[in-house]
Amino acid sequence: MDLSGTALPGCILMVDQTKLPEHLEYLEIREVAELWTAIKELKVRGAPAIGIAAGFGILLAIQKPGIDTVSAVLHEVDKTADFLAKSRPTAVNLFWALNRMRRVAIEKGGAASSVSVLRDCLAREAFAILEEDRNTCRVIGELGQACLEGNASILTHCNAGGLATSEYGTALAPIYVAMEHGRNVRVFADETRPLLQGARLTAWELMQAGIDVTLLCDNMAGYAMKKKLVDRVFVGADRIAANGDFANKIGTYSLAVMARAHGIPFYVFAPCSTMDSSLPTGEGIPIEERGESEITCGFGRRTAPEGVRVWAPAFDVTPAHLVTAIICERGILKPPFYPAIRKALANENA
Amino acid sequence: MDLSGTALPGCILMVDQTKLPEHLEYLEIREVAELWTAIKELKVRGAPAIGIAAGFGILLAIQKPGIDTVSAVLHEVDKTADFLAKSRPTAVNLFWALNRMRRVAIEKGGAASSVSVLRDCLAREAFAILEEDRNTCRVIGELGQACLEGNASILTHCNAGGLATSEYGTALAPIYVAMEHGRNVRVFADETRPLLQGARLTAWELMQAGIDVTLLCDNMAGYAMKKKLVDRVFVGADRIAANGDFANKIGTYSLAVMARAHGIPFYVFAPCSTMDSSLPTGEGIPIEERGESEITCGFGRRTAPEGVRVWAPAFDVTPAHLVTAIICERGILKPPFYPAIRKALANENA
Repeated sequence: MDLSGTALPGCILMVDQTKLPEHLEYLEIREVAELWTAIKELKVRGAPAIGIAAGFGILLAIQKPGIDTVSAVLHEVDKTADFLAKSRPTAVNLFWALNRMRRVAIEKGGAASSVSVLRDCLAREAFAILEEDRNTCRVIGELGQACLEGNASILTHCNAGGLATSEYGTALAPIYVAMEHGRNVRVFADETRPLLQGARLTAWELMQAGIDVTLLCDNMAGYAMKKKLVDRVFVGADRIAANGDFANKIGTYSLAVMARAHGIPFYVFAPCSTMDSSLPTGEGIPIEERGESEITCGFGRRTAPEGVRVWAPAFDVTPAHLVTAIICERGILKPPFYPAIRKALANENA
Repeated sequence: MDLSGTALPGCILMVDQTKLPEHLEYLEIREVAELWTAIKELKVRGAPAIGIAAGFGILLAIQKPGIDTVSAVLHEVDKTADFLAKSRPTAVNLFWALNRMRRVAIEKGGAASSVSVLRDCLAREAFAILEEDRNTCRVIGELGQACLEGNASILTHCNAGGLATSEYGTALAPIYVAMEHGRNVRVFADETRPLLQGARLTAWELMQAGIDVTLLCDNMAGYAMKKKLVDRVFVGADRIAANGDFANKIGTYSLAVMARAHGIPFYVFAPCSTMDSSLPTGEGIPIEERGESEITCGFGRRTAPEGVRVWAPAFDVTPAHLVTAIICERGILKPPFYPAIRKALANENA
């Protein structure tokens, strides 16, 4: 997500990810309701990008005409955060970003405050979330070099790249950094049904960057491992529980099972904002189920019988025991993940 | 495949499987070249159905004007068999059926033969292949009841049903027979990228039969196992090597790995005509790679960037050690598969 064109009073400018790879179109979002729809319809997607967009959504809300007292701003922040929180349930970054905005509102919205100071503090927080994500992705990319020894051939799933974040991405960050360092890596991108984020987004952004990428269907990944075409798996995450279990795009769990069966390391790349220490295990992560039509008539024609029953979880939960390491901006976390995650989060809050 | 409307002089009548589920259209094939294209383009597909169609293809060839001597018929059988053998490489039933037709031609095409006797023998052989397949599927369905104990919830991949054979199918035959016996079974059908045979064909034919079917994307199958939505896997086969390794639609290998990881039985249903005792292991099975456009623009619009590199194997090979049992018309074969398959094939030839 590129928010470089975002002006404080005005709009959020971002790529409409549903139009890629055929059309690179930008959305100018001026209303919170439009942002809600853009998140729901995956025009903006990727856990970090949703969090960033939510922060800026609060700014859109408090700039509306009539929101001109401190109490009106506080009410608007609360109402907007509640509303945006209902757009998608799984990625925790959305709630994390909204809570940061709420916290600033409460801290800076005391009786002695002025509307302009409060607005300014909220704007600084939204831009801080964006800027921190840029830095975080860069650090994750640098740390991830340790997961790229040898002539790496990486399998990735869905899109955990620049389109999912502010700049480098999470799982793709080490690949971009490796390229900057003049190293060659090879990527196999799962197309990622039903919405084909791998085919439409990951393949597109890696090709734009001149990186060697090969597209395959999700059901080919196991055979690619057996044929030794890939030697490690890099994925992002939408929510990581306190014990290291994590939710990510549906299909991630299958990859983790197959990576283990083939003795291939399986790495998760995610910022600390994706970690939810309130959940002891992945069992508690809410899994979004999406509409049947994404499977039965996803791309211009009906490809399944009318009225067929469909099972359509958008995410799955991979247990921590299948994860080789979690790479966040605080370091490379290795099992046992419970103390490692606790320590990483403590550092963040310190 | 329904060939009940097939008249000896004339045409092969069969469902155009590329038009399902939206349109139930029949093809009237009158030329061998049309049949070759129909096989290549998967208008007719499924290992047994391809074999049956190939037998009738020989009949189309020998009815052409001018093929009116014994030696002309023999030449035409040879030429047509060579030609049809080049349509698709993986399913062995194609070569098996063509060899049956060749053998009859050689046996019945001696100096003392007449054209009409030779044509008649070839016609009888083609209809025998069809009729044997009907019986085989029925027997496989009955034997397969032993794999359906309890309240079965079956995961299947691609289409190994009536559309892939003459009548009951292979992997779906036990499901149809169970229904006739008044038993309830539940089926989860992988959509099966890239050509969506599971969504378009399996879901359709099971719904037509009133069977409880739920469609899911291929990358959801592992999570369905983890959530205990399915408790066994039923698949067909395109070629089984002497040791029990087998080729089937891409994605089958991943299912076998995941079934093993979840302690779920994995059953292969196939006639003896799918067994290729000339290959000691699955390593020797030729794997068809198909066109990139099936992956990049399969749904009516382009869903991947122009020029992206694609890996597109149509099949994969599953090693025998991941297979619980192979159910053929000669019985339920259990490991070690090498002697079991040899015995089954010896019975067939006895």
